[in-house]
Amino acid sequence: MEVTRPWKQLILRALESSSHLQRSSYFQLATVGSNGRPSNRTVCFKGFLEDSDNIQIHTDKRRRKFEELKCHPFAEICWYFTDSWEQFRINGRVDVIDGSNSDPVKLQIREKSWLACSMELRLQYLASNPGLPCPSEQPQHFKLDPSTGPLDTFCLLILDPDQVDYVNLKSNQRLRFISRLSDNGEKFWTSEKINP
Amino acid sequence: MEVTRPWKQLILRALESSSHLQRSSYFQLATVGSNGRPSNRTVCFKGFLEDSDNIQIHTDKRRRKFEELKCHPFAEICWYFTDSWEQFRINGRVDVIDGSNSDPVKLQIREKSWLACSMELRLQYLASNPGLPCPSEQPQHFKLDPSTGPLDTFCLLILDPDQVDYVNLKSNQRLRFISRLSDNGEKFWTSEKINP
Repeated sequence: MEVTRPWKQLILRALESSSHLQRSSYFQLATVGSNGRPSNRTVCFKGFLEDSDNIQIHTDKRRRKFEELKCHPFAEICWYFTDSWEQFRINGRVDVIDGSNSDPVKLQIREKSWLACSMELRLQYLASNPGLPCPSEQPQHFKLDPSTGPLDTFCLLILDPDQVDYVNLKSNQRLRFISRLSDNGEKFWTSEKINP
Repeated sequence: MEVTRPWKQLILRALESSSHLQRSSYFQLATVGSNGRPSNRTVCFKGFLEDSDNIQIHTDKRRRKFEELKCHPFAEICWYFTDSWEQFRINGRVDVIDGSNSDPVKLQIREKSWLACSMELRLQYLASNPGLPCPSEQPQHFKLDPSTGPLDTFCLLILDPDQVDYVNLKSNQRLRFISRLSDNGEKFWTSEKINP
């Protein structure tokens, strides 16, 4: 059955009905590490890119997932809505956009994403190298001008989904959405009801 | 610094303080698929194996993670406690124990795990093949004798952790625990404070 991104509508509905819960904007992002083992961490949903179905995530270039995704640009999001018992598994390719990107349109999207961050979030990109030993207990105080553009450590990830698995554990229904390319190169989605 | 599994104490404390929340016993398990891409899904914590630090999970042999873990037996759990803002990333090797296992001790552990399941959970292992197209709307009704041993589809996964990354987003503290082997072959843990 051909469909027009109904999984996105399902996510938007789940987000709306749980908008009072801060936790609903967090999901788990799995990648494959340089040693071939899986990595998994909680990240924050930064919205869909314009009116596409591409998902935006922020990261620090110094975090492991930056290198992991550069080498192996595939990820699966697991997004579980704890109140509605709905789970989305979103698999796709990730575009890693840091300041060295050669595409001016992508750099513009990165800048827009940076400016949408609170000052508190922006300051995190000035903090000590994440994951490195932390010898001192001294609190760090940083300052940043609100007009300062994206810091070098700021990186935008854009996941372009090609398969979405949706399950509703209350109604016990499961749907699989698969993207395909039409003859004229346009992406479209098919969906199928599968056993939960 | 040598430590005796303090990450397990941290998990037990987080579990205890969120024991009123059913969602706290769920976490996300990442594996690597046969196509080399990451997979990620929500699963339920089935307790530590006896007094070890090995983590038990149940699955159906017909689910994709069974084959994935047979081929590539590494996984990373991401366990985020939404109320205390604590995250555990637990990386390790997974032992896949189904009915064809040749080790009688492991088969016994599998049987014990099966008997600890509610009847409702056991019946799920009789349901139609998960992930296959679901043509009919007819509800399924199954019956099972409470004394029936583990069904063939029932599989126990045991994750043996070798690295744990803990972060507390309230106190902004992060610890990395790494397991090592002593000269006499015993496993022990070291921990290090790292930048969040």
